Amino acid sequence: MTPLPPPPRIGSLAPGPRDAITDVAGVAVGHCTLEEGDLQTGVTVVRPHAGDPFRDRVPAAAVVLNGFGKSIGLVQVAELGVLETPIALTNTFSVPAVAQAQIRQCVAANPGTGRGLQTVNPLVFECNDGYLNDMQRMAVTEQHYLEAFAGAGADVAQGAVGAGRGMTCFGLKGGIGTASRRAGDHMLGALVLANFGKPGQFVLGGRAVGHEIAARLAARQRREAGEAEKGSIILLLATDAPLDARQLRRLALRAGAGLARTGSVFGHSSGDIALAFSTAYTVPLDADRPMPAVAMLHEARIDPLFQAAADTTEQAIVHALWHARTVTGRNGHGRISLTDLASDWPAFPEPEASP
Amino acid sequence: MTPLPPPPRIGSLAPGPRDAITDVAGVAVGHCTLEEGDLQTGVTVVRPHAGDPFRDRVPAAAVVLNGFGKSIGLVQVAELGVLETPIALTNTFSVPAVAQAQIRQCVAANPGTGRGLQTVNPLVFECNDGYLNDMQRMAVTEQHYLEAFAGAGADVAQGAVGAGRGMTCFGLKGGIGTASRRAGDHMLGALVLANFGKPGQFVLGGRAVGHEIAARLAARQRREAGEAEKGSIILLLATDAPLDARQLRRLALRAGAGLARTGSVFGHSSGDIALAFSTAYTVPLDADRPMPAVAMLHEARIDPLFQAAADTTEQAIVHALWHARTVTGRNGHGRISLTDLASDWPAFPEPEASP
Amino acid sequence: MTPLPPPPRIGSLAPGPRDAITDVAGVAVGHCTLEEGDLQTGVTVVRPHAGDPFRDRVPAAAVVLNGFGKSIGLVQVAELGVLETPIALTNTFSVPAVAQAQIRQCVAANPGTGRGLQTVNPLVFECNDGYLNDMQRMAVTEQHYLEAFAGAGADVAQGAVGAGRGMTCFGLKGGIGTASRRAGDHMLGALVLANFGKPGQFVLGGRAVGHEIAARLAARQRREAGEAEKGSIILLLATDAPLDARQLRRLALRAGAGLARTGSVFGHSSGDIALAFSTAYTVPLDADRPMPAVAMLHEARIDPLFQAAADTTEQAIVHALWHARTVTGRNGHGRISLTDLASDWPAFPEPEASP
Amino acid sequence: MTPLPPPPRIGSLAPGPRDAITDVAGVAVGHCTLEEGDLQTGVTVVRPHAGDPFRDRVPAAAVVLNGFGKSIGLVQVAELGVLETPIALTNTFSVPAVAQAQIRQCVAANPGTGRGLQTVNPLVFECNDGYLNDMQRMAVTEQHYLEAFAGAGADVAQGAVGAGRGMTCFGLKGGIGTASRRAGDHMLGALVLANFGKPGQFVLGGRAVGHEIAARLAARQRREAGEAEKGSIILLLATDAPLDARQLRRLALRAGAGLARTGSVFGHSSGDIALAFSTAYTVPLDADRPMPAVAMLHEARIDPLFQAAADTTEQAIVHALWHARTVTGRNGHGRISLTDLASDWPAFPEPEASP
Repeated sequence: MTPLPPPPRIGSLAPGPRDAITDVAGVAVGHCTLEEGDLQTGVTVVRPHAGDPFRDRVPAAAVVLNGFGKSIGLVQVAELGVLETPIALTNTFSVPAVAQAQIRQCVAANPGTGRGLQTVNPLVFECNDGYLNDMQRMAVTEQHYLEAFAGAGADVAQGAVGAGRGMTCFGLKGGIGTASRRAGDHMLGALVLANFGKPGQFVLGGRAVGHEIAARLAARQRREAGEAEKGSIILLLATDAPLDARQLRRLALRAGAGLARTGSVFGHSSGDIALAFSTAYTVPLDADRPMPAVAMLHEARIDPLFQAAADTTEQAIVHALWHARTVTGRNGHGRISLTDLASDWPAFPEPEASP
Repeated sequence: MTPLPPPPRIGSLAPGPRDAITDVAGVAVGHCTLEEGDLQTGVTVVRPHAGDPFRDRVPAAAVVLNGFGKSIGLVQVAELGVLETPIALTNTFSVPAVAQAQIRQCVAANPGTGRGLQTVNPLVFECNDGYLNDMQRMAVTEQHYLEAFAGAGADVAQGAVGAGRGMTCFGLKGGIGTASRRAGDHMLGALVLANFGKPGQFVLGGRAVGHEIAARLAARQRREAGEAEKGSIILLLATDAPLDARQLRRLALRAGAGLARTGSVFGHSSGDIALAFSTAYTVPLDADRPMPAVAMLHEARIDPLFQAAADTTEQAIVHALWHARTVTGRNGHGRISLTDLASDWPAFPEPEASP
Repeated sequence: MTPLPPPPRIGSLAPGPRDAITDVAGVAVGHCTLEEGDLQTGVTVVRPHAGDPFRDRVPAAAVVLNGFGKSIGLVQVAELGVLETPIALTNTFSVPAVAQAQIRQCVAANPGTGRGLQTVNPLVFECNDGYLNDMQRMAVTEQHYLEAFAGAGADVAQGAVGAGRGMTCFGLKGGIGTASRRAGDHMLGALVLANFGKPGQFVLGGRAVGHEIAARLAARQRREAGEAEKGSIILLLATDAPLDARQLRRLALRAGAGLARTGSVFGHSSGDIALAFSTAYTVPLDADRPMPAVAMLHEARIDPLFQAAADTTEQAIVHALWHARTVTGRNGHGRISLTDLASDWPAFPEPEASP
Repeated sequence: MTPLPPPPRIGSLAPGPRDAITDVAGVAVGHCTLEEGDLQTGVTVVRPHAGDPFRDRVPAAAVVLNGFGKSIGLVQVAELGVLETPIALTNTFSVPAVAQAQIRQCVAANPGTGRGLQTVNPLVFECNDGYLNDMQRMAVTEQHYLEAFAGAGADVAQGAVGAGRGMTCFGLKGGIGTASRRAGDHMLGALVLANFGKPGQFVLGGRAVGHEIAARLAARQRREAGEAEKGSIILLLATDAPLDARQLRRLALRAGAGLARTGSVFGHSSGDIALAFSTAYTVPLDADRPMPAVAMLHEARIDPLFQAAADTTEQAIVHALWHARTVTGRNGHGRISLTDLASDWPAFPEPEASP
């Protein structure tokens, strides 16, 4: 296999040292991957900080670009503007198992939860990996969530790992991708679970490669004619900029701009959900602890973050495709990687400097 | 025990024959109740029709009055405007187990679900019954959901049954209540899972009885001083009027008017969610089947349904309190019933006819 | 005319010294009233502080309880979470004239507006006073807005004044009402433009007086049989508690609980909109000025404000009805005041102390 | 002046005969343009059908992509799911004048409006043309609206006409653009008022031309360094597909995907609002007339419309830039057209056929 040239660099903002969501200080990512015959799935966990988010809540907001999805936890995020668990990603039918794991984890750390103390709000997102993975076996367990959590760190494996193991993107092997950009004084990172798009739609770094991808896939008979998209994408944004929930909602929406640039039209059957959180401050569970007195970013200075939200999202999708390896799973179904399908492609040009 | 006089009749619209949500033809309700020491909880299932809602979807919409809640399924209901499972109610920590039960039930009936066929959207609401029930034991299982489903019928047990087993309302024993009203040519029914309110707030059929209830509870030392409300209420409305999702959302909001009349201010810690559905038509899963050609209700004729939504909601809350019996549960905690606390009250006056 | 006894006191929280929205320090209210034959209308202005809100923006959020209304300005309030003009109230057809007046006022004070500087977002709410007032004459002018603004102060005239001049509430003369409550360390005030409700729905201080009101109106032939409600209510809340836009949105929703207690079911033809703002801090237009570093109220301490939001709203509606005087207007149409219709009513009981 | 080559064709769907929103049968567009020294502005009117939309309402829904905007009318559209006036576009400070014109037009046609009959909901969108046009003179009058309305027809002038006269897009002359696509059995058209974007962001038909545009503009000193975007875009979609308001809201969101492809990240200061309507049926004002019994499009068949929504939006933006001519206005400010700036560009390739 000839390696692909480096992926195209999106936009003119500079990436952080890892070009990953973990360039936002304190954010950690972990995976647990199941890869065994008909089971090609897993769990990915994003920890917003090293502490317990149940006690030190993290400001957050979400936007539903397309709500054909089965996440749990968004009602309370919308009301209270905070996360109180790590963010978990998995396959559609494993949301309950992972939500239960989050409840148990919170109870273990905070024994009064649901007795004297308030209950905890699990936050689990999903995409449908049923083409490569036998979701009906509901193979993901509490233990898998705990492994993903335990392994969370600053180095982020990408591609067909964790929740991304069984995902498909533009008819190719999809999965987990991440990226970061510096926006003025602040860092912004994205992590995506990419499982969306029809081959013909694919725009890669500004190039409309969809026709060629579709033709190459057809030549390999890798994609059934007329197969409807049943995909989804989860778009997570982290930033160290001091933003409140209203501003984070605005930020999350801009992930949609990055997604659209890759060719997506937020297709009907796709659960496209974006969530943004800030690490600039936390909100205490305990009302007797002082509330943070934070000067939020002036709205007139928010545009660089909007640009970074779109750029990191697009870059993270490119990374997911770049790093994914070909996977064969349920019933012998396979998804070929971009690497394998397009190893003969020329290099992308260097990005130009910002005007 | 002297029985209470009949509950006050709310409003001037006429109830249906059962004064229950099952007066809307086709709607069925079932309970599974766990009552054993520290476990005082359960599952309640509302079936919108006798068929499989995965194949024949039911138009629906929800309003989050207060989003301090952990339901699953609302993202997709908002996007697609339909239910595709029965509606399930349970305790907060049992949402995952019941959601998983719904997935398995759908897979059993539709083996392609999540393989070739699209995935199913579980729809589970919850309230926190942790005062009477040890939620941490997560005692509710798939089997309990199936029992509630199997027992669903037109007769609706009320009070401390099903998901209502461990619930508290205004410091009294709360739980399941239901009611119905005829609104012009249409029937509208409500079913509530009532677990909200501080004793002093309680307004019963227009009477501000809160002070007296609080005083009587204090005399029995039944309520700890300063205990914060950690309640919630789930408000379900069914109607046979032909309404689309936008209209059903308007209807659902009016459940909040009925709730407010009982004294609630949609307290901070309360997950107050209303969902309305129509039985007038269904939407086929299969795109090759014809879509229903339905003349929706003209908006200028919707006010009687709004009135009925508020009235049945208030009535259902009254019924929940009227039918609940005193329960003792976790750690010997108890909630006294309105019947036991106020058996000496005089009868409420007959409702006046509509002006 | 025998004066009515004092109005019922709503709830157990203590009112501020004026029992008016102006008990929130800095808030001022002014009216301009047109009362001349077929013209029975006006403008009411609520100033959130004594400065220019274009330069020092005021955190705010709105909730649309029923969107059958023609306000201008809410899109930007929702996005940016601030007010940048005074809040204006008027009749439905005069929204454009008042919006234009706000633009001109802002341009006069900030000459660069719409040239180098950004444009201003007018914020005008309305109710339909077409029964008493000939809206088609569009009699309200820029000058009327400026008069209402110029006259703004801490003393708030109530009843058939300003924008309330031509309004109808439960078939009686409605209009402007205001109230305030102390909630813990904070003050909260409400101002309503009450123009909603059918006579039979009216619940006054917990008493279902609707049947009697309807009967008395029928006896005077003051209300046409079967006349549909074409009303609306605008609900404004002010507080000195430090809340962000998300929290203010939660607060605004609780105005709906107060409204529901008076018998409203948020009828179809009614534009029922609640807006809440905080005077605890401002947000500078100029990005070079420092952003406020404010510790927001801990969410666990917000319930007293929710209670006060519902209680002041209900109280303000009662005040609007109590202070309104009988008005005759367009085509000889009249609306009788509660004072005139029910002067023989006994006094309401003193409120009980909080439990 | 050398003419530009034909504009790039976006996507693989076939345009309608006019490649304009008026390919949706019944839709008509008219302009009134003011071009005189410091006044470079106007009004554009989109009529959804040839009748009176007050009596025959048009199903519609809007999405606010970025709410830094001053439109009027969206609250009621969201609640009731219908338009009841033509859609009007103008500059920011002229919204009140045009709203008033719409009220007067409705009253003239329906004399009972605001007397016995309900009031009318004006629907006016705006962008800020203050760089080329002296908005403070508020030069747009009722007469200009009526002229635009009277001139409405199937031929749509594009570029610096009507409301587009003073608009700027990517630092170039922007304005009105339109396009259409056939999506299965249905036609979908878009009309945009394009006034957004920084030069460096511009992606034209998939080519990242922003750097070059920025460099050429800098060479002509046509754009001040560091000037913040103060733009906006209004995105209108029409279709003859039978969709309800919920579905139309989904459709409107996809206009954002087309917008993002041109390089926009929905910048902070931009009022980016999309509205979609269907011409497949109307809803009668009069409740005694029968409601339409329409079989809506099955959701599983909606993806071609989503694709068309994104493609026509992008195409309409391209058309706005292609057709706009260089304009000089207020204080001698000018915006050069793409034609003038890039007349030496080579032709775009023919679009490939759909895979």
